[in-house]
Amino acid sequence: MLGNFVYYNPTKLYFGQDSLKYLNDELKNYGKKVMLVYGKGSIKKIGLYDEVVKILKDNGKEIFEDPGVMPNPTLEKVYDGCRIARENNVDLILAVGGGSVCDYSKAVSVSAYCEEDPWEKYYIRMEEVNNKIIPIGCILTMTGTGSEMNGGSVITNTETKQKIGRVFGPEVFPKFSILNPLYTYSVPKYQMVAGIFDIMSHLLEQYFSGEDDNTTDYIIEGLLRSLIHSSKVAVKNPEDYEARSNIMWTATWALNTLVAKGKTEDWMVHMIGHAISAYTDATHGMTLAAVSIPYYRYIMPYGLKKFKRYAINVWNVNPEGKTDEEIAKEGLDRMEEYMREIGLVMNIRDLGVTEDMFEGIAKSTFILDGGYKVLSREEIIKILKDCM
Amino acid sequence: MLGNFVYYNPTKLYFGQDSLKYLNDELKNYGKKVMLVYGKGSIKKIGLYDEVVKILKDNGKEIFEDPGVMPNPTLEKVYDGCRIARENNVDLILAVGGGSVCDYSKAVSVSAYCEEDPWEKYYIRMEEVNNKIIPIGCILTMTGTGSEMNGGSVITNTETKQKIGRVFGPEVFPKFSILNPLYTYSVPKYQMVAGIFDIMSHLLEQYFSGEDDNTTDYIIEGLLRSLIHSSKVAVKNPEDYEARSNIMWTATWALNTLVAKGKTEDWMVHMIGHAISAYTDATHGMTLAAVSIPYYRYIMPYGLKKFKRYAINVWNVNPEGKTDEEIAKEGLDRMEEYMREIGLVMNIRDLGVTEDMFEGIAKSTFILDGGYKVLSREEIIKILKDCM
Repeated sequence: MLGNFVYYNPTKLYFGQDSLKYLNDELKNYGKKVMLVYGKGSIKKIGLYDEVVKILKDNGKEIFEDPGVMPNPTLEKVYDGCRIARENNVDLILAVGGGSVCDYSKAVSVSAYCEEDPWEKYYIRMEEVNNKIIPIGCILTMTGTGSEMNGGSVITNTETKQKIGRVFGPEVFPKFSILNPLYTYSVPKYQMVAGIFDIMSHLLEQYFSGEDDNTTDYIIEGLLRSLIHSSKVAVKNPEDYEARSNIMWTATWALNTLVAKGKTEDWMVHMIGHAISAYTDATHGMTLAAVSIPYYRYIMPYGLKKFKRYAINVWNVNPEGKTDEEIAKEGLDRMEEYMREIGLVMNIRDLGVTEDMFEGIAKSTFILDGGYKVLSREEIIKILKDCM
Repeated sequence: MLGNFVYYNPTKLYFGQDSLKYLNDELKNYGKKVMLVYGKGSIKKIGLYDEVVKILKDNGKEIFEDPGVMPNPTLEKVYDGCRIARENNVDLILAVGGGSVCDYSKAVSVSAYCEEDPWEKYYIRMEEVNNKIIPIGCILTMTGTGSEMNGGSVITNTETKQKIGRVFGPEVFPKFSILNPLYTYSVPKYQMVAGIFDIMSHLLEQYFSGEDDNTTDYIIEGLLRSLIHSSKVAVKNPEDYEARSNIMWTATWALNTLVAKGKTEDWMVHMIGHAISAYTDATHGMTLAAVSIPYYRYIMPYGLKKFKRYAINVWNVNPEGKTDEEIAKEGLDRMEEYMREIGLVMNIRDLGVTEDMFEGIAKSTFILDGGYKVLSREEIIKILKDCM
C-alpha cells in the first residue's frame, strides 16, 4: 500500500548537449560572488573549467575558487570551504563535478553560517538546518549518486574514522543542475561501470522491501530495464550518446526521492559496502557489486514474492512450469550474468578484503530494519564469506 | 534519443489518508483572503467542504466562495471568477474538486489581473503570462487530468464554440496539492472508469511517438502496468485503497511533464476525442476509449517497432514464433479485451455520434504531426467509421 508521504522536489534541471548555456539565465538570480567548487582537475582536462569561468566572467561575477574536493570529501575540507564561503560572503556555490563535489557543496552550504560545530549538529545529531543556507547550482560531470537533485551529503571525518551520510530537506537541494551527458564521456570505464551499479543498487535497495503492488515498484522496474539496456550499450561504446543520456537521466530519478515514496526501503547493501570501503578504500559502486549477489541470494527466501516478481518483470524469466524459488533464483542468476558482462568486480577479495577483516567489517556495519530480514553480525560474516 | 529539455516541477504534494491536515501548514504561507473554488457540490456530500471551511476559519482566513464550476469550465464563468478574485484582492485560490476545478482556477489565476482580454491573450495567442499570478492550492477529489501538478487549463468559449487547452509554465502550477485517495471513492463508477482511461490515454499519447529506447518510454511502461493492474482491482472493488491510491499517483505522473521529457508526442486520440465531445458532450475519457483501438490499429503499420515493444513489455505477449505484425496485433487485442473488462464505452455510436456528424468532426479535429502518421481528413473519417 502507498503510505502517507510528502513529495517536493524543486530542483530545476537543464538536460542535454546544449544545457550549459542556461547557466547564463540562472546566474541572473544570484549576487555577484560565486564560489567555484570542483575536484582534482578533470574539468580542466575536458575544457569545462574554461567554459564555466568565461560564462561567470561574462555575467560580471567575482569567482572564489575551492578546488581539490576528494572522492570521499573530508570534514577538514568542509571547514576550509566554510571559511572561504563566509569570509567572502558568497552568494552562490557552483559545484562542477560528480556526486562528491555536490555532496561537499551541500555540507558547506549549511555549515558556513552554523554557529556551533556543524559536524556535531548536522551529521551526528542530524538536526534541522536553522541557519542561513547558501544556494547551490550544480554542473554534473559524473553520474551515479543522484546528488544533483536530492539532499544527500556524505562526509568523512578522518579523525574519528566516521563516514556519515545525511539527507537534507528540499531547502538544501541544488536550485538548478545542468546535466550534459557529453561531460560523462571522460569518466574512465571502471568508474563508469561502478557508477552504473551504484544507480542499480539505489533502485534495488528501494525495490526489495515491502510486498505491495504499488506504482512505485512499477516505476523502479521501468528504470531498471532502461538501465540494463543502456549500460550494455555504453560498455561496448562509451560514446553512445543515447545510452549515456539514458544512464544519466535514470541516475537522477533513481535517487531523487520519487521511487521511495509511500514504501519502505532496505539499504543493507549500501551499509555493508560502506563498511568495506572504510577498510579498503575500494570504489563505492564496486563494493556494492561485490556484495549484492550473495546478499540477495541470502535474503531471497524472506522476500520470495518480490524476488519472483523481479525475475519476471525485470529479467524476463519465463515462469511456466517452475516453482517460485526456481523463478526467483533464475532472476538472480541472470542479474549475476549481466553484472559479469558489464565488467563489475564480483568478489570482495579483488577489492582488498581479507578474512581477518570480517569481524571488523561486520561490527562497523550499520544494521537497518527496512528489508526482508534484519541481519545479525553472524549473518553479515556469513554473507562476507560468500562474497570472497 | 533523449533530446534537450528543461524539467522543473515545484508543486508540493501531500499524499495519503492524513494529507488534509497539511493544509494548516500551507495556509501560513499566504495572506488572509482565500477564494474557495469548487464544483456542483459533491464536496459537500462527502463532508469535505465542512472540513476545509473549518480549517480555513481556524487559521483566521476570510473566505470568498466561487462554487458551481462545470465539467467543461466556460469562459463566462472565468470572467465571473476574475471579478471575485480582483474585487476582493484574494491571496490564494483554493481549488477543491477534480481537474475542471483546477483548470478553471488556473484560468482565474492568470486572468484576474490581465489588462486585456485574457481569452485572446492566453488561450488564442498563447502569450507568456506577464501580469500578477494568484497562487493556487489544490485539494483533489477526482483523478485523471493531472491538473494538480501541471500547467494545463482547458476552457470552453460557448459563444465561439471553442474548447482550448493551454499549458502554462511552472509559475502557474499549483503551489501545493493535497491528494487523498479516499476522496475519490465518491466518484460514480462510470466516471472512475472514464478517468482511468484518460490516464491511460495520456501515457499512450506520449509513448506512441519516436522509435527510441529512452528511459522515458520505460517509465511509461511501468506506469501502464501499474494502471492496468490497479484498475482491474478498482473496478471489482472501488473501495480498495491500494488500487485507488495507485491510480491517483499514476494519474499525477502520467501528465506532470516527466514522461514527455526528451521525446516527441502524438495526442491525436485526444484531438479526435475533443472533436467528438463538441458534437455530443460525451464524457472525455469515454471519447478517448471509443476512438483508441481503431486509431491505434490504423497507425500500427507506421510505428510497428513501438507497437511490438508495447505488446511485449506492457501486455506480456510472448513473441516466440510470431511476426512483428502478429505480436503488435496481439498487444492491441489484449488492450481491447482489458478495456471491455473494465467497462469502457467501445464505440462512438453509444456516445451519440451519428454518421452525418463525421464530416464535421473530421473538419473540427485539430491535426497534429507528432505521431507515426499525419492523418488526412479522409483518414479521420475512415477511423470514425471503424469506431462505430
